[in-house]
Amino acid sequence: MKRTQRVGILIKILSDSPNKTFSLKYFCDLFGAAKSSISEDLTAARQVLAEMELGIIETTSGASGGVKFVPYISNEAIAELQDELCKKLSDPGRILGGGFLYSSDLMFDSQLVKRVATVFARKFQNYGADYIATIETKGIPVAVMTAYLLNIPLVVIRREAKISEGSTVSINYFSGSYDRVQKMSISKRAVAPGSKAIIIDDFMRGGGSVKGISDILSEFDIDVVGTGVVIADAEPEKKKISDFVPIVYMGEIDEANRVLNFFPNCQIF
Amino acid sequence: MKRTQRVGILIKILSDSPNKTFSLKYFCDLFGAAKSSISEDLTAARQVLAEMELGIIETTSGASGGVKFVPYISNEAIAELQDELCKKLSDPGRILGGGFLYSSDLMFDSQLVKRVATVFARKFQNYGADYIATIETKGIPVAVMTAYLLNIPLVVIRREAKISEGSTVSINYFSGSYDRVQKMSISKRAVAPGSKAIIIDDFMRGGGSVKGISDILSEFDIDVVGTGVVIADAEPEKKKISDFVPIVYMGEIDEANRVLNFFPNCQIF
Repeated sequence: MKRTQRVGILIKILSDSPNKTFSLKYFCDLFGAAKSSISEDLTAARQVLAEMELGIIETTSGASGGVKFVPYISNEAIAELQDELCKKLSDPGRILGGGFLYSSDLMFDSQLVKRVATVFARKFQNYGADYIATIETKGIPVAVMTAYLLNIPLVVIRREAKISEGSTVSINYFSGSYDRVQKMSISKRAVAPGSKAIIIDDFMRGGGSVKGISDILSEFDIDVVGTGVVIADAEPEKKKISDFVPIVYMGEIDEANRVLNFFPNCQIF
Repeated sequence: MKRTQRVGILIKILSDSPNKTFSLKYFCDLFGAAKSSISEDLTAARQVLAEMELGIIETTSGASGGVKFVPYISNEAIAELQDELCKKLSDPGRILGGGFLYSSDLMFDSQLVKRVATVFARKFQNYGADYIATIETKGIPVAVMTAYLLNIPLVVIRREAKISEGSTVSINYFSGSYDRVQKMSISKRAVAPGSKAIIIDDFMRGGGSVKGISDILSEFDIDVVGTGVVIADAEPEKKKISDFVPIVYMGEIDEANRVLNFFPNCQIF
């Protein structure tokens, strides 16, 4: 196999399993090539991915060393994604009344949420998280994609304790959006005590459900090291949690005149 | 940019957006190269992906023509995935009692479910589906990944009609697993009448919930053209639906002696 072909396949295999470390030997065996050739292939792959801002190839030395692909999205691509989201969200056809907007089509658009997840992956890459945590249902796709890109397990917190979750821990929390006490529940088997988690969700208004997720995780002595949400309501300015990364903000919603207002978070990086 | 680099980037961009058609002009502009060079790059990319059984590059001619990446997984990689799933599922620590097994760790392992989704994508690539449909919660990750690979929208059927879904259609159905009547609900905005869907779910016992999904979709005159499940119980042999594709089968579960029995579906292709 020629260099051109090897470099293409290297990029394909590495970027299909983000943040998974492959040994050099794996590629030597796959291509029937010497380590020195594979090293040169990797250099070529690394350079072109860096130049195009499409990802980072990291090599680590030592016995457990190897090579892995770290996802990346450029500032330009983030701005483009934010503009696209704001434009789609501003469609007055989304108004459901009572301050609710229809957004499931976007949250369940897997190629769109993968781009959103790449922003979170770039942001949280070095936070040392062991898990991505989310609460069912609409945040699951973006949380799955973030977990995929960071190569860490996803923990889905349920509204109800299900028999298929085994023994669970549950809490009650106050949801401002629904103006009532709600319940959440987590399987004891899903998490290891003393670890670190990043919370990913689709939407944040007052921060009640993210605070709830943080509380239920603290029952397992799990530290929340970061929080990413696709959309954050600009109001109330003071939320129940202080440290979170929205992709876009929801501004004033004028239901009477059917005008929606969304704007990008320009301070992600 | 040299051919080696262009081929690597072509593979990266195309395989990051499976089943999305890019015009040749897009790549000409990106690389500042002539159409003839890009065509040769694509030939090199196509050949090496085919040789390694890592995907198919399809070109279509005409005004709306272009090039797209079609996901593929080899028969060997499917057998390996099935073995891995059977081995992990056979762990007696999964026994929860009453015929229930803990499987959330696997269903929420995003890199694992992406491999499963690639099997479904290969299987259902040419079924002409407009949607992937699933019911919350545990099947969502594999359904998201399948929707991603086929580049079609995901529709998530909810257990309860939520305010954020707008107006909904609901049905009641009998779930054999839970031995009771359950409810499911779908947003009217989520689907276009007269289209086609593929159902993806994590587990099938009697087929009640897949039958329910099919029934609720038929309220919108949506035809189910395929069904994929990660695990199907071998019993009862006669299910409420006849045409479905499991990745693995669950055989006898001997809870007293803590012996689980899973085996691959060798007739996927």
